[in-house]
Amino acid sequence: MNRKLRMGMIGGGKDAFIGAIHRIAANMDGLIELKAGALSVNPEVAMESGKILFLDPARTYTDYKTMLEKEAALPESERLDFITIVTPNFAHFEPAMLALDKGFNVVIEKPITFTLDEAKQLKAKVEETGRTLLLTHTYTGYPLVKQARRMVADGVLGKIRKVWVEYPQGWLSRATEKDSAGAAWRTDPKRSGKSGCFGDIGTHAANLAEYISGLKIEKLCADLNIFVEGRALDDDGAVLLRFDNGAAGVLMASQVAAGEENALKIRVYGENGGLEWAQHEPNTLLVKWLDKPTEIYRAGNGYGGYQSSYAVHNTRTPGGHPEGYLEAFGNLYRNFALTLQAKIDGRTPAPEALDFPGVDDGIRGMAFIDNVVRSSQSTEKWTNFEI
Amino acid sequence: MNRKLRMGMIGGGKDAFIGAIHRIAANMDGLIELKAGALSVNPEVAMESGKILFLDPARTYTDYKTMLEKEAALPESERLDFITIVTPNFAHFEPAMLALDKGFNVVIEKPITFTLDEAKQLKAKVEETGRTLLLTHTYTGYPLVKQARRMVADGVLGKIRKVWVEYPQGWLSRATEKDSAGAAWRTDPKRSGKSGCFGDIGTHAANLAEYISGLKIEKLCADLNIFVEGRALDDDGAVLLRFDNGAAGVLMASQVAAGEENALKIRVYGENGGLEWAQHEPNTLLVKWLDKPTEIYRAGNGYGGYQSSYAVHNTRTPGGHPEGYLEAFGNLYRNFALTLQAKIDGRTPAPEALDFPGVDDGIRGMAFIDNVVRSSQSTEKWTNFEI
Amino acid sequence: MNRKLRMGMIGGGKDAFIGAIHRIAANMDGLIELKAGALSVNPEVAMESGKILFLDPARTYTDYKTMLEKEAALPESERLDFITIVTPNFAHFEPAMLALDKGFNVVIEKPITFTLDEAKQLKAKVEETGRTLLLTHTYTGYPLVKQARRMVADGVLGKIRKVWVEYPQGWLSRATEKDSAGAAWRTDPKRSGKSGCFGDIGTHAANLAEYISGLKIEKLCADLNIFVEGRALDDDGAVLLRFDNGAAGVLMASQVAAGEENALKIRVYGENGGLEWAQHEPNTLLVKWLDKPTEIYRAGNGYGGYQSSYAVHNTRTPGGHPEGYLEAFGNLYRNFALTLQAKIDGRTPAPEALDFPGVDDGIRGMAFIDNVVRSSQSTEKWTNFEI
Amino acid sequence: MNRKLRMGMIGGGKDAFIGAIHRIAANMDGLIELKAGALSVNPEVAMESGKILFLDPARTYTDYKTMLEKEAALPESERLDFITIVTPNFAHFEPAMLALDKGFNVVIEKPITFTLDEAKQLKAKVEETGRTLLLTHTYTGYPLVKQARRMVADGVLGKIRKVWVEYPQGWLSRATEKDSAGAAWRTDPKRSGKSGCFGDIGTHAANLAEYISGLKIEKLCADLNIFVEGRALDDDGAVLLRFDNGAAGVLMASQVAAGEENALKIRVYGENGGLEWAQHEPNTLLVKWLDKPTEIYRAGNGYGGYQSSYAVHNTRTPGGHPEGYLEAFGNLYRNFALTLQAKIDGRTPAPEALDFPGVDDGIRGMAFIDNVVRSSQSTEKWTNFEI
Repeated sequence: MNRKLRMGMIGGGKDAFIGAIHRIAANMDGLIELKAGALSVNPEVAMESGKILFLDPARTYTDYKTMLEKEAALPESERLDFITIVTPNFAHFEPAMLALDKGFNVVIEKPITFTLDEAKQLKAKVEETGRTLLLTHTYTGYPLVKQARRMVADGVLGKIRKVWVEYPQGWLSRATEKDSAGAAWRTDPKRSGKSGCFGDIGTHAANLAEYISGLKIEKLCADLNIFVEGRALDDDGAVLLRFDNGAAGVLMASQVAAGEENALKIRVYGENGGLEWAQHEPNTLLVKWLDKPTEIYRAGNGYGGYQSSYAVHNTRTPGGHPEGYLEAFGNLYRNFALTLQAKIDGRTPAPEALDFPGVDDGIRGMAFIDNVVRSSQSTEKWTNFEI
Repeated sequence: MNRKLRMGMIGGGKDAFIGAIHRIAANMDGLIELKAGALSVNPEVAMESGKILFLDPARTYTDYKTMLEKEAALPESERLDFITIVTPNFAHFEPAMLALDKGFNVVIEKPITFTLDEAKQLKAKVEETGRTLLLTHTYTGYPLVKQARRMVADGVLGKIRKVWVEYPQGWLSRATEKDSAGAAWRTDPKRSGKSGCFGDIGTHAANLAEYISGLKIEKLCADLNIFVEGRALDDDGAVLLRFDNGAAGVLMASQVAAGEENALKIRVYGENGGLEWAQHEPNTLLVKWLDKPTEIYRAGNGYGGYQSSYAVHNTRTPGGHPEGYLEAFGNLYRNFALTLQAKIDGRTPAPEALDFPGVDDGIRGMAFIDNVVRSSQSTEKWTNFEI
Repeated sequence: MNRKLRMGMIGGGKDAFIGAIHRIAANMDGLIELKAGALSVNPEVAMESGKILFLDPARTYTDYKTMLEKEAALPESERLDFITIVTPNFAHFEPAMLALDKGFNVVIEKPITFTLDEAKQLKAKVEETGRTLLLTHTYTGYPLVKQARRMVADGVLGKIRKVWVEYPQGWLSRATEKDSAGAAWRTDPKRSGKSGCFGDIGTHAANLAEYISGLKIEKLCADLNIFVEGRALDDDGAVLLRFDNGAAGVLMASQVAAGEENALKIRVYGENGGLEWAQHEPNTLLVKWLDKPTEIYRAGNGYGGYQSSYAVHNTRTPGGHPEGYLEAFGNLYRNFALTLQAKIDGRTPAPEALDFPGVDDGIRGMAFIDNVVRSSQSTEKWTNFEI
Repeated sequence: MNRKLRMGMIGGGKDAFIGAIHRIAANMDGLIELKAGALSVNPEVAMESGKILFLDPARTYTDYKTMLEKEAALPESERLDFITIVTPNFAHFEPAMLALDKGFNVVIEKPITFTLDEAKQLKAKVEETGRTLLLTHTYTGYPLVKQARRMVADGVLGKIRKVWVEYPQGWLSRATEKDSAGAAWRTDPKRSGKSGCFGDIGTHAANLAEYISGLKIEKLCADLNIFVEGRALDDDGAVLLRFDNGAAGVLMASQVAAGEENALKIRVYGENGGLEWAQHEPNTLLVKWLDKPTEIYRAGNGYGGYQSSYAVHNTRTPGGHPEGYLEAFGNLYRNFALTLQAKIDGRTPAPEALDFPGVDDGIRGMAFIDNVVRSSQSTEKWTNFEI
């Protein structure tokens, strides 16, 4: 390809958190340019946001249907390559379906849809249209997360026995939803879905656990809690897990762990050793062994060539120049872009480029929410993971 | 008192791990001297061990009954003040009962007995004889664990909502019991009791959680596992917890977390903030807040007088000169000794000295094991914590 | 402004390290677009690199003079706003002078020039032309470095007494220059200048020390070493420092600290407390006190509003979503861009935007190299810092 | 031997810091018993301290000369084996000389004497009497410090190029000497000697550097400072070092590094890799490599047998049960005791037991102080290390 890919954005107006993150991630590697947007349901905010982002006013829209309609009608030399959807959860499905129908590829902020049923419909649509979908489960974009996945897949730990994953936050320890728009929709069943904490961050933890371990959750036992008075959705919980190879797991997530930021952490143990990775120090992967010293794998430090091609491919700087959340996010966009480029050029994308979360991850995420909520309401210990 | 307290020891022969630890802990502060021992059921090992420890051969015994009999008959000026019992779990109860009957105070390595019923009988005996019993739940001897307990008790975190406690080890990842005597009895139901991992280290985690939080476990949901083939007792597990104030918790323990040492860690969150303490860095307590920076409390650093009298009392060195496991263990013995001294002198012990684990902790520990095993075998999600 | 700023690049062809970093930094925030380049002295590489970057072939040049000539002749609506120079050290000065003469603003990778004298000439040119110059001393772009500077300036530590700064790397532990182009020019006096390690990373450390402390080095005592046989420039060294307020300091830099990555770290102590920041965990700033617990300041965690506007301005994500080296680099470009925007629009830039390194930092950096080399060759203990 | 070794103590009365530490260290392993003391120059304090320590009043003395006289006259079955001297620096020499003359072995708190000349006389006396002397340079007692020394000696890092050692404290940031007896004598030239900070902690750092590296300081360039007004001795400083194999080093010590505790840390780099050890986490040794991941060596974790016999010999607990400063101190006493036992029994001590600091370390320590002070007063850059 001899040009950048053209992106349109639905949602993500000037004060939204996650839209700005998507734009940085898309900008970073110089492969994508933002060309159009329906950035807010509020027309004034939509236009003002477009202006701040230097969008052509002619391609700044006040509703997404118009945008998709008009953009689809443009000649191929101007037409958008893909649409990024960063609206609240309840407003993912319809624009995604329409975008696919109009021939666009799609990026969706997780969770993929409002319900599991929508996720299944979306999968059918992706298959029907042959378009590419990226679901931004950010944490799988970290190079050392990819390294961890490869080491497990290569069997260096032996058979996996244990997966411990946790995601504590503290920002909803008080009734923050009274002051913060982001907190308000996340705690509102009508906009967020049937789970709060587990829809927002529990799914990230589950996705990470399955991604690194290469295993699938088979049954679970959930305990969801609401600690802040007046709240309608869970703000905390823990889940016992059983994976398809017999491994046991624990998943903990909380938004009332006062004083915690985004302390996502995972530990995986096999017969021969274990892995530990935490988002707060994402450039370090601890590799533990039964009978030799723990090793510190470092992102970007390929001196001895000990890292997999997947880790190397997703790193931009030498060891010791820390990359972070935005680079991990950028890796999702970069791999999505490399895949689209290859498709457009008629090439087969490299396996490293193809390694980004998609509609199947979305379905498992929605199913995870469903099964956790069902288990939490049950007096039975174990609930089978059903899709 | 104008003399050291006199200690006798049952078990703890020359190759035993925990007996040596008890002796170091007892020696450390110069308050106690080892005067007699029935150190092994093997007479040769018993005599040889006594010699290594410079015991008077006349007070080196080959069975504990003889020891208790003879030592009880000595004049007060020579008689032992207390008996430390460091035999495998199944052999705690009888010597403890007899020692109490003979008028000795008692130190017992945890778990206190083989069954909950024995623990209850022991409690009755303690009450009947008026003797003092120390149960060596070591981790409550760390100064910053005491600090944490005091901060929770003083309400600085607000109402407690969450307790996460974990104790991963890796040393039983393989069938170590074939080579190691310590592993052999710990994995043998006849000598260890009805639980392996949870009897050995799960109880430590539960004890620490209740000690720091000041809460009692009210119900639980346990998942115990055996990962190493041929093993009869759990080597891994996780438990969802509900405390008596409504707080939720998770307790994880494993002896197959390959590559882990003794990575006991606890986090407690309340409405206003949280605490984090880990045995691997025991001189650091993280104090987290909703709206100000996390603080690093350090053992021994009392510059600003920010530590409780309980933390200060259990510290021997200035900040930055790390104290560890043996000092924590030594704190149990020191507080026990200070309490005995006061009783002998007719004084009331200081509250800081009285803060050591005793028979009630032992009963809750045995009940914890019982309830966890019962829950693990149940298809019901929640099992009430019964004593 | 209603458009992105237009950037041209000199150097930074397809295999160069630092050019790629500059492009990511410039891309990240959507304020800048790369429009032209003279990316290599090798014409083929220059054209190929332009293609990879989707540059208009008409604006892809094979020498920088032609580029500056032609681009200066373009109408204002197309003309470049600034030129980034990422050639080896010896080739900074001439393109920078010419660019300024042609009316362009300039970004230069550090060290600013090959000699101190050139740096002085460049300063005169900047003043003469009224253009803006950014010198990419990256580390001052980290939000918590800015926070540290503000805290010192606000006097919270009291009078500063000590500054310890260190920058160990290990990548030149062997004669890497035989295989690596980047190592080759850095160890070559003709291309790198009169110092190797201290020109490359010692200057970063010195810049960081002066930036955070707000002090100026007044005299120094240097010990430069060459450890790898056959090397012509220092690959290691240490410098004792004396600052203009009487504070003492130590600066250590090495490229033969085998096993180290880019472990830049600084500690500053005043009468009341100290600060510690390290690039390997850049989102944490330790704030130490004489009589209260150490505090952990975290980037992006503004819950309690304890961070300065300078730290907040240079952060893109909430606490716990780590930002890193590229974001710090991006902050330099972002602040430079905000300053240019304001100038173009006729506004006064915000003080937070104006806080980026410029030509004066460049002069001090070149003087630091000169003085360190002079001191290292002297038998006198102290050498005055002369400019 | 079939008995504990008998210890007498000079200094170390009830409120002294270091005397209590010596007693804990001596008690810990059950090899030594305190039998006599001249614990204070204040007779009341001396008697009261003896009582608290359960000493026989007949062996509690009010001056050390009487003690040495009377104890030397006791029959061999009661006579003291060694004397521990824990008085302030100026009062080490005379009692040590007398104790040796009376046939006792000796333990001395560092620095060994008040002047270098005294140290030399003491060495002659040790040689003349054939007695054993332990100098308590505590930090060399840590198991992982021993491990580090062995790895360097075994050549695993290749030739050593760099040694960075630092010892920051903050407790003298204010004029603490007005309130604290310990601070008062340490800052008083008449009691402490010609250096404050460098006599107290700089010597520890120098000793550790030479111990681990196996190298000797050959020349140095010192910069000593006094930051607190009215103080007569240095409270801060830094020294550039050159070792006898050509390695370069930096030694930093400060007692005005506000907010620091006892943050002793050392890094050693050779051609192939580096080592890092810090007292704050003494159970971890980082082993860094040029072309493979950094390894975390852990005290007590001998699973893979990767630790030297010296590290294993000086460890009491399994990995993850942290040992600390008191155990390191205890290792000095334990090795000294094992050596004395062997001598008494006519056996050759094991090499691991013989590895404790003695009179030669004391001489180098005093020479270090002399040379640092001399260099600090010189305008020449380098001062040869003279003894």
